[in-house]
Amino acid sequence: MNASIITIGDELLIGQVIDTNSAWMAQELNQYGIKVIRRVAVGDVADDIRQALDEEIKQADIILITGGLGPTADDITKPLLCDYFNGKLIIHQPSLDNVKYLFEQVFKRPITERNLKQAEVPDTCTVIVNKRGSAPGMWFEKNGKIIVSMPGVPHEMKGMMQTDVIPQLIKRFNPQHIEYRTMVTFGIGESAIADMILDFETSLPSHIKLAYLPNFGQVRLRLTGSGSNQSQLSGEIDELFLQLQQLLKDFIISSKDASMESIVGDCLLQKHKTMATAESCTGGYIAHLITAMPGSSAFYNGSVVSYTNEVKEKLLAVDPSIVKSKGAVSEEVVIQMLSGVLDVTQADFGVAVSGIMGPDGGSDEKPVGTVWMAAGSKDQIRTKKFHFRFDRQRNIQVTAINALNLLRECMVGHDDK
Amino acid sequence: MNASIITIGDELLIGQVIDTNSAWMAQELNQYGIKVIRRVAVGDVADDIRQALDEEIKQADIILITGGLGPTADDITKPLLCDYFNGKLIIHQPSLDNVKYLFEQVFKRPITERNLKQAEVPDTCTVIVNKRGSAPGMWFEKNGKIIVSMPGVPHEMKGMMQTDVIPQLIKRFNPQHIEYRTMVTFGIGESAIADMILDFETSLPSHIKLAYLPNFGQVRLRLTGSGSNQSQLSGEIDELFLQLQQLLKDFIISSKDASMESIVGDCLLQKHKTMATAESCTGGYIAHLITAMPGSSAFYNGSVVSYTNEVKEKLLAVDPSIVKSKGAVSEEVVIQMLSGVLDVTQADFGVAVSGIMGPDGGSDEKPVGTVWMAAGSKDQIRTKKFHFRFDRQRNIQVTAINALNLLRECMVGHDDK
Repeated sequence: MNASIITIGDELLIGQVIDTNSAWMAQELNQYGIKVIRRVAVGDVADDIRQALDEEIKQADIILITGGLGPTADDITKPLLCDYFNGKLIIHQPSLDNVKYLFEQVFKRPITERNLKQAEVPDTCTVIVNKRGSAPGMWFEKNGKIIVSMPGVPHEMKGMMQTDVIPQLIKRFNPQHIEYRTMVTFGIGESAIADMILDFETSLPSHIKLAYLPNFGQVRLRLTGSGSNQSQLSGEIDELFLQLQQLLKDFIISSKDASMESIVGDCLLQKHKTMATAESCTGGYIAHLITAMPGSSAFYNGSVVSYTNEVKEKLLAVDPSIVKSKGAVSEEVVIQMLSGVLDVTQADFGVAVSGIMGPDGGSDEKPVGTVWMAAGSKDQIRTKKFHFRFDRQRNIQVTAINALNLLRECMVGHDDK
Repeated sequence: MNASIITIGDELLIGQVIDTNSAWMAQELNQYGIKVIRRVAVGDVADDIRQALDEEIKQADIILITGGLGPTADDITKPLLCDYFNGKLIIHQPSLDNVKYLFEQVFKRPITERNLKQAEVPDTCTVIVNKRGSAPGMWFEKNGKIIVSMPGVPHEMKGMMQTDVIPQLIKRFNPQHIEYRTMVTFGIGESAIADMILDFETSLPSHIKLAYLPNFGQVRLRLTGSGSNQSQLSGEIDELFLQLQQLLKDFIISSKDASMESIVGDCLLQKHKTMATAESCTGGYIAHLITAMPGSSAFYNGSVVSYTNEVKEKLLAVDPSIVKSKGAVSEEVVIQMLSGVLDVTQADFGVAVSGIMGPDGGSDEKPVGTVWMAAGSKDQIRTKKFHFRFDRQRNIQVTAINALNLLRECMVGHDDK
């Protein structure tokens, strides 16, 4: 069962908006054995939308469309779909009630003629009520193909997919079983892994595939299998996953698909311990990664983002004479930052970073990308120095992941790699 | 001059990776009058890649391909391109030298056979040397169309685009001039704006277009014009931009394309003032938004992420009896957090937030999405309460933007909207 995703909107083609919808949709569909074979983005141009529909309907069984349904004048998708599926626009009463409810009760903003028009739908579709916004979804069928149009606002689209579209697709197609197993490695490159597991990879049966997903020093490895007998497939893929774990055992930081911050979080929860962060150059990004996880308040005490030396000295009790003699980016300072934050937050574990993220602020002795970090507890502190060579954004991200990994190593007692 | 972007990789179609490359590429190309008309993503499947090439070459003058050039076995793009453009694979010596340099000098990892193979290129392309990674770029021409293949790693692709691809395209096509003007509004919806500027919008000449880009309570409005006479176009679009500013003057927070954090940052730089943040529920995200901007150390002192009540009390001098009687999510507590952080960081302005981001932690009295925030200086503090109704991630983002807007209002002395 194949699907194609069409995203509509000039904002995608001029690059003002990053398309996060497609990735989410693909993940959801894959879980139920529906394979996304293509994704196409087109602008708010009638001919281009029509052509994309023509092309994708030829290639896929299911076409999911997002975007182009907003209330403003640059949106032309709905009249086009109405015409494409030989319908005429009619008012859909539940959607009209929903628009009125949203504006009167939730947004508390005056309702406009444009908003009311959002309740119009082609009479040839099955309407999907939008519980989170004003634009309804539309489910069309033509020559055995299913075409669903949804708004581009992520949480509105996600709501519709979860409560309506996916359950309907499963009911209709009863698709093949798909099984995944994912592990995460750290500190080894894609090519080196490929060489280590060459025999394993070439001997995989054709219905089981291996994918490499590198990101910031981590490489996730995912085995994906498909088949009609779920328990047989599951056993087969478990066995292969174990083999792969054996081959890469020195580099695996998780045997499931987990982010570095969730690996650290799980470790703390298991130990019933807490953590804190003292961040200079990452400016709160490590704290954000952790607190973005639901339930992180169970193990996270807080952070001091010490962007100035005064804050380092006042809140983290860093010695001003050390800052002066060694510089803010130094092993001595990150050790003091770590001790300071463990003290003030009463956390069991912590991590401290100080560095130069760029583009300015570097020197010959300490070029842009120089980072010192310390992690551990009152009893045991590890430090590490890095020289990253990316842009500011990526330097911040890579520093955060490596700092969390250093903390992870402290907790599991691994050797420094 | 039209372009199409093809992204290659199973990881895009299974949704494990979000495609940020396309948006960046589109922005860059647009600046030089090259319009992206379609974006297509296909998996690591030879037939699908071939078909995408066939289709896009029909429709666009320039086809930019990213991805599919990694060293591991799931990558099949290069041999396919070689065949598609009737070449044979040969070793490209500068790329070979580059791969050796990177592994020996930069990565300090052993070089593998796979890595060396990355220096192979079809003899029918012009090679673009990759200064940031091991996979070279390839520039092909066929029937007057230009097809460029680049790696999918964002900073490698960006480097090639900036130093080679875009300069070559400009030299070749001498494209039409494109002019943009963008403003940012806050606190008004897309539909309400559309109604306010209906006459303006319908009277726009056909070579000037208006786009609405809504995001977290902000709506960016962008006028885009194209023409052969740059100064005439520039004057025309300036005049229209002024008209639009007049129509929406009560809602405009910036007359250029600026993020909320950069608007706040610019305001501080102008006033020669500093700021700090005290974050509970946003967990460092406000600090991250600010410190992600180069040069933010000129006006940002730091943050206390007070995830526990103990940290609120110890670092921000919040009164424990107030936390007990009013709760951590209360007007009284955010006022004390703000005073505390202004005191310890010696910043001129600050913002403090406390709330319940979900999915757990809500109560009847204070449901998930309840947020209190305070912003201002020692002399003047404003507070505001919100009830957001999104998921955790979006609640954090919306809280951060609204907190920064409250601070902005304090600084510019606007009335609370």
